[in-house]
Amino acid sequence: MNKSRIEAFSDGVFAIAITLLVLTIAQPAGYGNLGHELAKRWPSLAAFVVSFAIIGIMWLNHHSLFGHFQRIDRPLFYLNLLLLLTITFLPYPTGVLGEALHRRQGTQTAAVLYAVAMAVNAWAWSALWLYASHRRRLLAASFPEEERALATLMFTIGAVFYTLAIGVAFLNAYALLALQAALALYYALDPVGRRPRRGKRRGATPELPVTEAPKSPGDPAVTS
Amino acid sequence: MNKSRIEAFSDGVFAIAITLLVLTIAQPAGYGNLGHELAKRWPSLAAFVVSFAIIGIMWLNHHSLFGHFQRIDRPLFYLNLLLLLTITFLPYPTGVLGEALHRRQGTQTAAVLYAVAMAVNAWAWSALWLYASHRRRLLAASFPEEERALATLMFTIGAVFYTLAIGVAFLNAYALLALQAALALYYALDPVGRRPRRGKRRGATPELPVTEAPKSPGDPAVTS
Amino acid sequence: MNKSRIEAFSDGVFAIAITLLVLTIAQPAGYGNLGHELAKRWPSLAAFVVSFAIIGIMWLNHHSLFGHFQRIDRPLFYLNLLLLLTITFLPYPTGVLGEALHRRQGTQTAAVLYAVAMAVNAWAWSALWLYASHRRRLLAASFPEEERALATLMFTIGAVFYTLAIGVAFLNAYALLALQAALALYYALDPVGRRPRRGKRRGATPELPVTEAPKSPGDPAVTS
Amino acid sequence: MNKSRIEAFSDGVFAIAITLLVLTIAQPAGYGNLGHELAKRWPSLAAFVVSFAIIGIMWLNHHSLFGHFQRIDRPLFYLNLLLLLTITFLPYPTGVLGEALHRRQGTQTAAVLYAVAMAVNAWAWSALWLYASHRRRLLAASFPEEERALATLMFTIGAVFYTLAIGVAFLNAYALLALQAALALYYALDPVGRRPRRGKRRGATPELPVTEAPKSPGDPAVTS
Repeated sequence: MNKSRIEAFSDGVFAIAITLLVLTIAQPAGYGNLGHELAKRWPSLAAFVVSFAIIGIMWLNHHSLFGHFQRIDRPLFYLNLLLLLTITFLPYPTGVLGEALHRRQGTQTAAVLYAVAMAVNAWAWSALWLYASHRRRLLAASFPEEERALATLMFTIGAVFYTLAIGVAFLNAYALLALQAALALYYALDPVGRRPRRGKRRGATPELPVTEAPKSPGDPAVTS
Repeated sequence: MNKSRIEAFSDGVFAIAITLLVLTIAQPAGYGNLGHELAKRWPSLAAFVVSFAIIGIMWLNHHSLFGHFQRIDRPLFYLNLLLLLTITFLPYPTGVLGEALHRRQGTQTAAVLYAVAMAVNAWAWSALWLYASHRRRLLAASFPEEERALATLMFTIGAVFYTLAIGVAFLNAYALLALQAALALYYALDPVGRRPRRGKRRGATPELPVTEAPKSPGDPAVTS
Repeated sequence: MNKSRIEAFSDGVFAIAITLLVLTIAQPAGYGNLGHELAKRWPSLAAFVVSFAIIGIMWLNHHSLFGHFQRIDRPLFYLNLLLLLTITFLPYPTGVLGEALHRRQGTQTAAVLYAVAMAVNAWAWSALWLYASHRRRLLAASFPEEERALATLMFTIGAVFYTLAIGVAFLNAYALLALQAALALYYALDPVGRRPRRGKRRGATPELPVTEAPKSPGDPAVTS
Repeated sequence: MNKSRIEAFSDGVFAIAITLLVLTIAQPAGYGNLGHELAKRWPSLAAFVVSFAIIGIMWLNHHSLFGHFQRIDRPLFYLNLLLLLTITFLPYPTGVLGEALHRRQGTQTAAVLYAVAMAVNAWAWSALWLYASHRRRLLAASFPEEERALATLMFTIGAVFYTLAIGVAFLNAYALLALQAALALYYALDPVGRRPRRGKRRGATPELPVTEAPKSPGDPAVTS
């Protein structure tokens, strides 16, 4: 199996899913009082922005994660397909949540739908990692062993957090949206992607294709 | 004709078709009782998942199949275009089937439409293979001759099965959907893609770009 | 300007436009008599198939044409952007024509819209060619001089034919659709793409990346 | 971080956003008097063409700009993601503006929405440039120092102009659309992309991957 073509296919799916999100922003019902109509739809815009950030950050982490794989086998392809399924599905709950919030009807249900979709996504990430990292099945030699257990822990904690977020969805839809944004920002700091760099300092192969260029000392803190 | 650009174009079409499927999931008609509205639409979600799996698995098999081609000529390009036509069309019957099932109206017709679309797709696959493999027209030298007849048999059986599935569509729409999922899972085992590996053991060129990395003895059975 | 990235961007636009066409197929208005509803919409399916073939064949010719360019400059980029504009626009007249034909209302207007869109597309192709080939501005050295005038003639004739097709649209919408399909099939034979092969026999560089592999004597006639 | 994959991801988003624009062209409300219905929708077509030109020109400038970067770091990735957000959002104000203009309702609001979306886009461009160019953080060695201040000035002026355009939107929606088209044409002349060529004449590395092939003396003036 050709790793770079599977990455390119995944990249395509990410790029399309992130761009299709714009279709989920609720259209104005009338143009007579357009300013008011648009203003009422701000939750729809907020849901769009949160989902956009989620998919964009996931793309980067997908890119980092696959950089640690030496090869791809058929089960990993299907686990990746499952992950892509949860990502291409995201425009649906995004649209429903935005619509529910601006109609002020069904907000709890819509928030639970969104939270469940994100939890399934987190489980797919964990399954992908557990399969690939178990006994270093598909890991590149340059991925430091001491980071493996830590990454497993973090993927597991992530899955637990996203599952607990379903509870928040039952309480308040806006709180759920804010929590999802916060979780995305946490992943934007890329806890796993940073590991190998440390490993590199300890002598891993410098030609690993996806690691970042060495940072200059004056490099500012990572911000989103 | 540049094989890798035709593959890249096909990859793009697959990636877009698989992502557009989300637009076929029926939107709630109202938000007053959103939970009930969404629950009623589960067949729409089921049709989405089945079509997603079908396109994802087809992508992988397309990728494997083209790996066995040494070159691409103009007729093959048009046969591939025909195949892509049947794949980009899939969101239409998927949407119609999901909608028919949740309305409980026109389910038989919708199932037949879906089954016919998949049968035409299977015929396009067979035509592509028959054209490319006839007298080894476009096959790579590394593709073992003894696998050729077997692959032809399997593509033919596949086309027959998908044609017979139209009969199932007349009986029951849910049975058709389940059958399509089962057929997709069968293809997920990739009967053709596995052949060359055996050929390799007999000495085929190891630099064939799309064959899988050799599996370790402890590699688990292929699952989806 | 990086030629391969402009080609990749164009490929992406072609792949998306061809896949978006499925959204133009008219949805059934009701599911009570779904078979009848779908059958009434066959012109919508026919328009989809014709536009799909047109975009697919154009992709191949775009690919061949750019293979004859040595480099790309800024004016060519904008002419290519104009060409892409006419291609991404195609789903609109396709949807309108399919809808008009199945409603049996506004068919003449819809056919004229489709014909005009295709004529503008043909003019964009001609402008692209004339700019690139004038004094061999951007042509690769391997493109034989004697083919240049012929290609110019063919692009010009093409533009004239597509312009005359607007007249057919005024007469009958089905005739226009059939004519567009016939014109697409004519271009499927790729009059320009074939030239360089002859040139190659006369000693052009064999490593030109986009020319076809030499055909075997038993190669069947080009069919679509 | 792998620069070429981030470029490919961005290219994909640009290609999809530019192609999705066709979905913003308002569909005819009826087919009884289709010619009149379509003619009334010309502002929708005009908005489509302007947004198409904007995204196409931005793609080229994105391509040029990233050619001046030696590497990409995480903050730049997120600034680029912000830029892509403003680009994928563009179909929404495009559709609203086209619809408002043909309904002759809410045109001022729609024009302001469009102008604000473009202003945010211009700020995202400026932020990207300022971050990357500050103390030459990510700039390639071949980017001439004397051009850096000029480029910063031009990005700043651009952001100011796009912000002032919001004022025009309050006055007249058609004037805003014309102004946006004019600003796009100005950027089509690529003031930044041209710099390095001059730098090259002064001895920069010729293998810089994205610079244009040297122009022949007879090269016509840049036109769009």
